Amino acid sequence: MAIGTQTASARRSNFEAILELIVAEQTEYLHTLGVPVDAIDVYRNSLIYNVPGGKLTRGMSVVDTVEILKGEPLDQGEYFKAALLGWCIELLQAYFLVADDIVDSSIMRRGRPCWYRLPHVGLKAIKDCAIVQGAVYQLLKAHFRLEPYYIDLVDLFHETTYQTEMGQLIDLITAPEDKVNLSKFSLERHRLIVIYKTAFYSFYLPVACALLVSKIPYSYSLPSGATVQPFDVSRSILIPLGEYFQIQDDFLDFSGTPEQIGKIGTDIVDNKCSWVVNTAIRLANPEQRKILDENYGRKDAEKEKVVKALFEELKIRDVYAEYEEKVVSELRQKIGEIVEVPGGLKKEVFNSFLDKIYKRKK
Amino acid sequence: MAIGTQTASARRSNFEAILELIVAEQTEYLHTLGVPVDAIDVYRNSLIYNVPGGKLTRGMSVVDTVEILKGEPLDQGEYFKAALLGWCIELLQAYFLVADDIVDSSIMRRGRPCWYRLPHVGLKAIKDCAIVQGAVYQLLKAHFRLEPYYIDLVDLFHETTYQTEMGQLIDLITAPEDKVNLSKFSLERHRLIVIYKTAFYSFYLPVACALLVSKIPYSYSLPSGATVQPFDVSRSILIPLGEYFQIQDDFLDFSGTPEQIGKIGTDIVDNKCSWVVNTAIRLANPEQRKILDENYGRKDAEKEKVVKALFEELKIRDVYAEYEEKVVSELRQKIGEIVEVPGGLKKEVFNSFLDKIYKRKK
Repeated sequence: MAIGTQTASARRSNFEAILELIVAEQTEYLHTLGVPVDAIDVYRNSLIYNVPGGKLTRGMSVVDTVEILKGEPLDQGEYFKAALLGWCIELLQAYFLVADDIVDSSIMRRGRPCWYRLPHVGLKAIKDCAIVQGAVYQLLKAHFRLEPYYIDLVDLFHETTYQTEMGQLIDLITAPEDKVNLSKFSLERHRLIVIYKTAFYSFYLPVACALLVSKIPYSYSLPSGATVQPFDVSRSILIPLGEYFQIQDDFLDFSGTPEQIGKIGTDIVDNKCSWVVNTAIRLANPEQRKILDENYGRKDAEKEKVVKALFEELKIRDVYAEYEEKVVSELRQKIGEIVEVPGGLKKEVFNSFLDKIYKRKK
Repeated sequence: MAIGTQTASARRSNFEAILELIVAEQTEYLHTLGVPVDAIDVYRNSLIYNVPGGKLTRGMSVVDTVEILKGEPLDQGEYFKAALLGWCIELLQAYFLVADDIVDSSIMRRGRPCWYRLPHVGLKAIKDCAIVQGAVYQLLKAHFRLEPYYIDLVDLFHETTYQTEMGQLIDLITAPEDKVNLSKFSLERHRLIVIYKTAFYSFYLPVACALLVSKIPYSYSLPSGATVQPFDVSRSILIPLGEYFQIQDDFLDFSGTPEQIGKIGTDIVDNKCSWVVNTAIRLANPEQRKILDENYGRKDAEKEKVVKALFEELKIRDVYAEYEEKVVSELRQKIGEIVEVPGGLKKEVFNSFLDKIYKRKK
């Protein structure tokens, strides 16, 4: 199961096969608890509807990272553990997304109606996603309870969940969809939201899981005598990398064509606290700011056009290009500073993330 | 702070004072994370609105149990730890109740509008209660991370949460408010719902927390040579005790006067899967069953009267009285079988629960 020997679609199928095992295991577990079949079916349906179907980048990056750290193909047991942790992240994300969609009154998710919008579901979706979150800890216990790093794994998932939910809360109060107030926006506020809401769970969590399951020590010495704390090093690279990823996402929402990004950008009409508007706020003179105040966040195609024209006038594309080159060069430098020793961190862990993101068009 | 030396209201005030410390600590923690003041305020308001204000029996029973196990007044540090665990249970309950109220479209909770019904809250309440749940684990980590029983504490909260949510799910699919189908009801189904939805978190969880923080061993020997597993013994008493408590609650909803129980019973019109209707289903002849099918779970005062009359005809009051005597005598016997040794379980732990419940009228 080495990276080199498999196509992307085979890798995805292997990973998806583990979810089938997880669903079967959960079903069996609930049977042994005496949970009736009709309740198990409801739960199983919510798992199957909400957990797969995304890009699975977060989950699969646990497997990728474990492979890179090992430097050779994983055996079956190693693959299963890495993939299981990957699916725990995907389960956690499903929990976030099902709840977010209710809070945001979203209509569609991954090309299908949001779970809560199905007639037989409704607000019971709140309970369904809570159980999906609970399944994360049930799975961690069933498969990792005897590992020395079990408690660190559990703490890691708690901490990341708390950070993500705090990020969502900050986002909700900064940019409510129905009440535009750009004085609450700033690049600093944007940064805080992005780091808490996205970077921790999407970038740091998969790598931290991989470090734990690979039993990389919490700290180790280099031949030079220096001490490395691999979790801290990883965080110091992956958090800015996650911020870059989200800024790119925000930029593509403005600059990408529908053919390219597979959707129509709606950040402007949705009053999103996006990097693009925050950069515009920073660059705008008082007149331009007035235009933003009067046109941003309105469900009105004409006003959206006015905002887009202002973004062009402020040369947001150039600002972004400059930002991207700067952040990528800083990241490459940080990654380059990693000194590789057997059983320790590898540059490739971080380069593989960066290569997937750099100059992506969708 | 011994039981004997304090009035009930002083005990409650002492316990409530710990919540103030917890709120202050959480606020401070979020400050250090860089969370902005407006977000912290939102979180603090949701804690203050949703966590206190109930009967606090679950939370305070941790303190009571730790005191009984110790057999003498707790010092300040011991009291703080016990009370903190008690509040973790109250936080967990706040998380359940805020979410339940949304799912059930409830109007009032503890004499005030449900949190989600406040105009500035709405469905964002889903996020607020998720953060309250996250706070449980943040508090456990901050105060118990170095204890040898930390991981057991965390596992216990996870397991109990999962059990409770599974109970809620079974309840929701068994007794949807808008679709009466008594063929889904049975005393067995009722028992399953009650045990999962109520007994674990209301009765077993507080005592299990108290056993852990009191460092009662997972297993110990008696002078007779027999081995005691105190967690299993506690569960074997507290789960039927919790079931009894809920059956009593169901019975009071039918039999209690508003003056007595402080509310008007609505289980019949709300299509609740109550012990009363399940007992009636078991006792009914085909004609009586037809009356139930046609009148139960309807928002109609006349139909409610018909159901109530049938309950009287079936002598539910006598059945309940008989049930109560039987279960209480079984519980007293089980409790009586406990052999007390220093540093082990005590009968008083369970008798104090039973005494509060037996023949209660509200």
